[in-house]
Amino acid sequence: MELSGVDILGYVAGLITAFTFLPQVLKTWKTKSAKDVSLAMFLIALTNQILWLAFGILRADPVIIITNAVMLFMTSIMIALKLKYNHS
Amino acid sequence: MELSGVDILGYVAGLITAFTFLPQVLKTWKTKSAKDVSLAMFLIALTNQILWLAFGILRADPVIIITNAVMLFMTSIMIALKLKYNHS
Repeated sequence: MELSGVDILGYVAGLITAFTFLPQVLKTWKTKSAKDVSLAMFLIALTNQILWLAFGILRADPVIIITNAVMLFMTSIMIALKLKYNHS
Repeated sequence: MELSGVDILGYVAGLITAFTFLPQVLKTWKTKSAKDVSLAMFLIALTNQILWLAFGILRADPVIIITNAVMLFMTSIMIALKLKYNHS
């Protein structure tokens, strides 16, 4: 398997994408306050990740599958935290 | 140009991705409060969108270019709002 520079850029972008929501999850977990966070943003992200996951599975593309599985997991935690700490 | 079902799924996912951050921008704009929002999340997103934009340009892929140009614009606004309303 040979990787071009363009492929490597795609993998790096995929890896960073996977952890985009981690700082928000950690912040909300720590402060127990999610009043200012938009629930709609995470619901759109959830819908989007399910679509990307389906796309990745249909294309049999491991980078898309892994990236979106990780994001789906973090987004689900964030939605739960938002619902729990919405009024704190 | 013929589009497969898989391609269409990719375009729909791209379109939804582009507007993920819009509800957060509107919410912060309206409430003038961004204390609970993670700056790190948007800085990671910004880095990520720049990489995806470069990837899209190198691949000459209009969907990736447009999606990430829109996201880059919204993320920049959100970072400005976060810095402005951080302590409200």
